[in-house]
Amino acid sequence: MSENGVLSRAKVLTIDTMNPTVKKVEYAVRGPIVLRAVELERELSEGMKKPFSEVIKANIGDAHAMGQQPITFFRQVLALCSYPELLNDSTFPEDAKSRARRILQSCGGNSMGSYTASQGIDSVRQDVARYIERRDGGVPCDPDDIYLTTGASDGIVTMLKLLVCGEGATRTGVMISIPQYPLYSAALAELGAVQINYYLNEEKCWSMDISELQRALDEARRHCNPRALCVINPGNPTGQVQSRQCIEDVIRFAANERLLLMADEVYQDNVYAEGCQFHSFKKVLFEMGPEYSDTVELVSFHSTSKCYMGECGFRGGYMEIINMDDEVKAQLTKLVSVRLCPPVPGQALMDLVVNPPQPGEPSHDNFIKERTITLSALAEKAKLTEQVLNTIQGISCNPVQGAMYSFPRITIPEKAIQEAMDKGQEPDMFYCMKMLEETGICLVPGSGFGQTDGTYHFRMTILPPTDKLTILLNKVKEFHQKFTQQYS
Amino acid sequence: MSENGVLSRAKVLTIDTMNPTVKKVEYAVRGPIVLRAVELERELSEGMKKPFSEVIKANIGDAHAMGQQPITFFRQVLALCSYPELLNDSTFPEDAKSRARRILQSCGGNSMGSYTASQGIDSVRQDVARYIERRDGGVPCDPDDIYLTTGASDGIVTMLKLLVCGEGATRTGVMISIPQYPLYSAALAELGAVQINYYLNEEKCWSMDISELQRALDEARRHCNPRALCVINPGNPTGQVQSRQCIEDVIRFAANERLLLMADEVYQDNVYAEGCQFHSFKKVLFEMGPEYSDTVELVSFHSTSKCYMGECGFRGGYMEIINMDDEVKAQLTKLVSVRLCPPVPGQALMDLVVNPPQPGEPSHDNFIKERTITLSALAEKAKLTEQVLNTIQGISCNPVQGAMYSFPRITIPEKAIQEAMDKGQEPDMFYCMKMLEETGICLVPGSGFGQTDGTYHFRMTILPPTDKLTILLNKVKEFHQKFTQQYS
Ligand SMILES: Cc1ncc(COP(=O)(O)O)c(C=O)c1O
Ligand SMILES: Cc1ncc(COP(=O)(O)O)c(C=O)c1O
Repeated sequence: MSENGVLSRAKVLTIDTMNPTVKKVEYAVRGPIVLRAVELERELSEGMKKPFSEVIKANIGDAHAMGQQPITFFRQVLALCSYPELLNDSTFPEDAKSRARRILQSCGGNSMGSYTASQGIDSVRQDVARYIERRDGGVPCDPDDIYLTTGASDGIVTMLKLLVCGEGATRTGVMISIPQYPLYSAALAELGAVQINYYLNEEKCWSMDISELQRALDEARRHCNPRALCVINPGNPTGQVQSRQCIEDVIRFAANERLLLMADEVYQDNVYAEGCQFHSFKKVLFEMGPEYSDTVELVSFHSTSKCYMGECGFRGGYMEIINMDDEVKAQLTKLVSVRLCPPVPGQALMDLVVNPPQPGEPSHDNFIKERTITLSALAEKAKLTEQVLNTIQGISCNPVQGAMYSFPRITIPEKAIQEAMDKGQEPDMFYCMKMLEETGICLVPGSGFGQTDGTYHFRMTILPPTDKLTILLNKVKEFHQKFTQQYS
Repeated sequence: MSENGVLSRAKVLTIDTMNPTVKKVEYAVRGPIVLRAVELERELSEGMKKPFSEVIKANIGDAHAMGQQPITFFRQVLALCSYPELLNDSTFPEDAKSRARRILQSCGGNSMGSYTASQGIDSVRQDVARYIERRDGGVPCDPDDIYLTTGASDGIVTMLKLLVCGEGATRTGVMISIPQYPLYSAALAELGAVQINYYLNEEKCWSMDISELQRALDEARRHCNPRALCVINPGNPTGQVQSRQCIEDVIRFAANERLLLMADEVYQDNVYAEGCQFHSFKKVLFEMGPEYSDTVELVSFHSTSKCYMGECGFRGGYMEIINMDDEVKAQLTKLVSVRLCPPVPGQALMDLVVNPPQPGEPSHDNFIKERTITLSALAEKAKLTEQVLNTIQGISCNPVQGAMYSFPRITIPEKAIQEAMDKGQEPDMFYCMKMLEETGICLVPGSGFGQTDGTYHFRMTILPPTDKLTILLNKVKEFHQKFTQQYS
């Protein structure tokens, strides 16, 4: 009987009768630690006493939330597109107005409120193609191969969806790095595909080893049908930037083993370390000659969420598909049409990212200034993070060559591991949860991304403002020392 | 050998090795007719001679593309949120500014560029809950039961995904109306769920018959496990508005048969016919007393794309889940977190829709004026469409009580049916394709939505401006007469 005295009926939809693949999905970046952080914030705001006065979220690559400022020009154009009356406002620069006019002319009824082509606005895809050509030193790019997406997440999930088939030993397997960005494992779980782990080499600054790829692939071939290889460069959560040689080796491996390549290049402007440089998979592919550039199937993903713009909330992004079979491409176009179109403000923003103010235009200097400030600050914080973490005994951190994260290895005392086990928790989850409760710092345990058995890590973004980051790093230091002492 | 003299390798991903469920997906609203319409537009713009001077798209519910104007207040707030510098601009009304401030305060770093909670911004969900309470005469609504979405499409697909399980005779079946909005069949195909068709009664103005629901359900139970019933009210493509009695009967049916109800209510403000009124499933459910309101699992969907706002491009929407099992709800929250969050401008817009200018606020009168103009024009065009279509011999059209479409039945001569069959085309596809080539009018054939065997229809939106709609209707008349003559 329910509270109302009515016979309670069993639910149609219960945990036992729901989609079993959905149950298998995990997504650590927004997992239990983050839920607890939100609770703690609420408790603080209600006046509850805590050993800290604020929760610092270093768990997610959410730049504006950490105080990074948007690019003025981008926001001016978005305002103009949202409310075209402003085109009569003389305080807006002419280049912002002309960009806004061009975007609006590509929209049905000159309104961002219209659905666009499912693949994205034509003129935006043309601008993306030209951007890629410039970036890759003239390698040609066909706008028809560009699909605008709802953030890179959408593109990645869509491509995986297209790919997965077969049952049992012929089920599609997809190779992903460990550690990985957990969107990949989540999408594979949801699709019921086989996740094939290849381990990045922590000793060599989280680089990719072809021998490790081969090992993972050979093992997987015994129980599934490996068909794709995903690479994140610059890396999340690991922050490495791949060398040109490494990319070439990976492409050769994919070609030899007949794997479709998925290159997650959302951090393409986030390269900080000296001697490191971003090389797109596409550019390297084309430099390897027609034997490769005519055959290897490659999909590359980009987003408005990262780099210097950090515009996550707009959910803009694109993917470029290279050497995709024409019939499959038609299927892809059909599939994306079901969702009608990506959000238009995100498409507009993507357009601005690939076509920013040019030299001589009124907004150019300020644009360069703002972009430089943001990227320099990130470079500085990458360095700071690595340096301070490496002063802590029991923590060792690879250089943060790129992206927005450090992924240091932490030594957890045996006793703490035991206590975690007793609680049924991963030791690094236990560690991070304790850190959150004692210091207010919200990190993500390494187990959420995957790591070599018996090693422990956490992921920390480099995004807080420098002063806050310094405090945060010192708190981590203090906490780690106390924790180590307590469990020794 | 490829063109470059290199041995061409077989693709990894081909039509034969791709996801077979994706291949089964169909989406007529953006199908071959629309692709041809886009081609024709290109040909016209290149100066090619056609028997018409412009392509008129009446295939999709895309209001702004057809010239409908956005609500000024909404766009002002969006501009303010995009470029907060404008908060210092005295030409913006105070109520727009205070709304913008409230939205920005709910965003990390006061920026729409931040990711939000995956379920959507807290304050927006609170506003949605209050809107629903007002709409439903005080029936309580918990903001925790609101999930903001990327358009209603996203919510619908997510709910279906949660639900589908089992294999063979226990595979989840979902009941959808025929005719239906093809998002449903597409999503079910992609998920590999069983589509259970129930037919709307064309003779009774496309109403739902419980006996037909029962027939469809009983038949389906022999080969699958029916678990959900989808209803679109007001209807797309059929334009009917359900009576309170009908909704009550449907709810009773769902309760007796243990079906989860999915109510697609994106056209809730689009009711034109005298004597018709929108009743939300939730309100009726609660009026039926705790036997129903405490037990029946109901999910309702809304969107920024339709009604008087027509803001499709922003991809805003929400769903309300009622009587959902707590564990399932936790799984839903986890599932949506993988995509990070719905687009923030769409969330902001959804907030404005549920919390528009209030009496006494500076923008109130203009808001009411703009909304009234749009809704009156739609009502007028609904009437006009029905009237003109019914003057055509061989076409009969039910009243367009609501939504944005007419779905008239057309008589296609035997000879034309034969010619279509010979071409391997559905007769109404043949008809619409011919109309497009001869008149430039782009409609969607009834076969894209489903219809009783041996009957033929097309869907035409009522969205073109009245003068254009009049021309369009006359062209349809002319074409139909000519077509009928030609094939008699
Ligand atoms: C490696 C990587 N790929 C993809 C994404 C998805 O980003 P979005 O969907 O916001 O574009 C992220 C977000 O953090 C990421 O780190
Ligand atoms: C009945 C119905 N449901 C859902 C949608 C999806 O709309 P959106 O995803 O733009 O909110 C539409 C769009 O036409 C519709 O007609």
